Amino acid sequence: MRSEPLVGDLSEKEILARISERTGRAENALVGPGDDAAVLRVTGSLIATTDTLIEGPDFRSEWSDGYSLGWKAAAVNLSDVAAMGGRPTALLVALAMPNDTPVSRVERIADGLREACERLAPGCAVVGGDLTQSSVLTLAVTALGDTGGRAPVLRSGARPGDTVAIAGEMGVAARGLGILFERFDGTAPDLSRLTPAERHAVERQLRPVPPLGLGVAAAEAGASAMMDVSDGLVLDATRLAEASAVTLDLDSGALGPDPQGALGGGEDHALLATFAGEPPEGFRPIGRVLAPGAARVLVDGAPFDGRGGWDPYRDWAGPSGS
Amino acid sequence: MRSEPLVGDLSEKEILARISERTGRAENALVGPGDDAAVLRVTGSLIATTDTLIEGPDFRSEWSDGYSLGWKAAAVNLSDVAAMGGRPTALLVALAMPNDTPVSRVERIADGLREACERLAPGCAVVGGDLTQSSVLTLAVTALGDTGGRAPVLRSGARPGDTVAIAGEMGVAARGLGILFERFDGTAPDLSRLTPAERHAVERQLRPVPPLGLGVAAAEAGASAMMDVSDGLVLDATRLAEASAVTLDLDSGALGPDPQGALGGGEDHALLATFAGEPPEGFRPIGRVLAPGAARVLVDGAPFDGRGGWDPYRDWAGPSGS
Repeated sequence: MRSEPLVGDLSEKEILARISERTGRAENALVGPGDDAAVLRVTGSLIATTDTLIEGPDFRSEWSDGYSLGWKAAAVNLSDVAAMGGRPTALLVALAMPNDTPVSRVERIADGLREACERLAPGCAVVGGDLTQSSVLTLAVTALGDTGGRAPVLRSGARPGDTVAIAGEMGVAARGLGILFERFDGTAPDLSRLTPAERHAVERQLRPVPPLGLGVAAAEAGASAMMDVSDGLVLDATRLAEASAVTLDLDSGALGPDPQGALGGGEDHALLATFAGEPPEGFRPIGRVLAPGAARVLVDGAPFDGRGGWDPYRDWAGPSGS
Repeated sequence: MRSEPLVGDLSEKEILARISERTGRAENALVGPGDDAAVLRVTGSLIATTDTLIEGPDFRSEWSDGYSLGWKAAAVNLSDVAAMGGRPTALLVALAMPNDTPVSRVERIADGLREACERLAPGCAVVGGDLTQSSVLTLAVTALGDTGGRAPVLRSGARPGDTVAIAGEMGVAARGLGILFERFDGTAPDLSRLTPAERHAVERQLRPVPPLGLGVAAAEAGASAMMDVSDGLVLDATRLAEASAVTLDLDSGALGPDPQGALGGGEDHALLATFAGEPPEGFRPIGRVLAPGAARVLVDGAPFDGRGGWDPYRDWAGPSGS
């Protein structure tokens, strides 16, 4: 006898009912789930972004329970709204899953989506979605947000002389991923075997806590450019520098206790921004914007040729090189 | 030697470049693809909906080339915006695919997305998206639209005495699917072996042409309720009747030359609406709204118990029964 119902045992309507009783209500929703589409009040302009989590390339089921999956799918999308200087208002969730997925896993995904919204972006909630059958568990989330009447903060506005600043953790989620690969390959992570710092890193990898509210704060403080760091600080800084046609010079001494981890680490979804004036509270200066040079990103004034180019033995003797 | 590049041969940036040169520009986009998120101008309230096409349950690659897939993914989502009485303004596309997908297939998906927007919803285009690797080709599309200051048309507003009306084809796409299953199971459809009517049906199944502009027309004419018919006329009419707490009585004589096909057929994405007054041009009266009775949907005044309940031998002797 099976101990719990599977997705294939229930009708679409029954599954939707279990999801929608868990996802809460978006403050700006005029029409929520249940009609052909949701309808939302928008103040200013609309921000819209989509990002997908797929079993295999993006997560492993032995590491990510349903709650973590729902949380992460929400967090990474909400972060892209914050990175435009906006306030997230609603999520749409396209969930595709095998028929042998336990219904409890779907319910936990819904719980994770709701609690990430409540914690990271109060007022935001799931307003619609789609359920499909697939052999691969797939969460495609669209996040919507609001500029609140301010101009959106683009990647392209950094100007020479601006301060480069960051909000949020750097390198922690990447360290957590390393721990999962090294110590829990193929098994559920036993957090009791980890030090507090290791446990924190694993938790941040599975359930990132990006500094979402600081996106609006940066926009209000006149950020000239902003983006969220999802693929690694150097790689994303290179993108911002390219979009702005400038060079960014990062100060390794400002990158915390593990500068190498910070430069390579991505999935914390820190906010990288540039400011002509003083960065607002919550942002830490980590460098300055220069006129465009041969390299898009420098570390301590020396060329840094991207994620793969970081050689700790060659580059890590400090500003003087070796 | 391979004759053409595969997705796995190119970087994400190269694939994105090939897609974005094909997807056109949305009229209301303030910021298009390339930043953390898109930014859109909205007039009135925002309409948002998502729907996913997955290889296997939703399409077969031997029947649907990339162009048809892109077209259909756009059309079915745009139709949900129209069904709220809105004008579609933008699409976000999360595309997940195996590394051995030919790049030309991705390019044709982009072509299909663009041309469906141009033909069905001028001014609308892809404004953002996401690329991921998956073993199953998956297109999760979010469509955004605008109420233009009018109230959205919900499923719940039908009142006794209203006229039930429909715009668009009925049963044609379902007939096309039947032809594909019967005559081209496991092979590419050879349209030259089909009569013109059969070819039309197959084309409509693969590339539906919903009457999108009539969504706004219905809202302007004061439609009391509306939805798009995606799962079958009777099933969807039952949903509208439930949401409105009424009974719908459909007139089989108004359903065209194949009433049985019309009652069961879905994927044409016809617009089903109710009107207190005269339906606007493009809508055909097919019945009336009654006070709620034991059955949610009647056909010619007799109970009809849903999609599976239609028995042509028992029910199809006409209004008098048999």
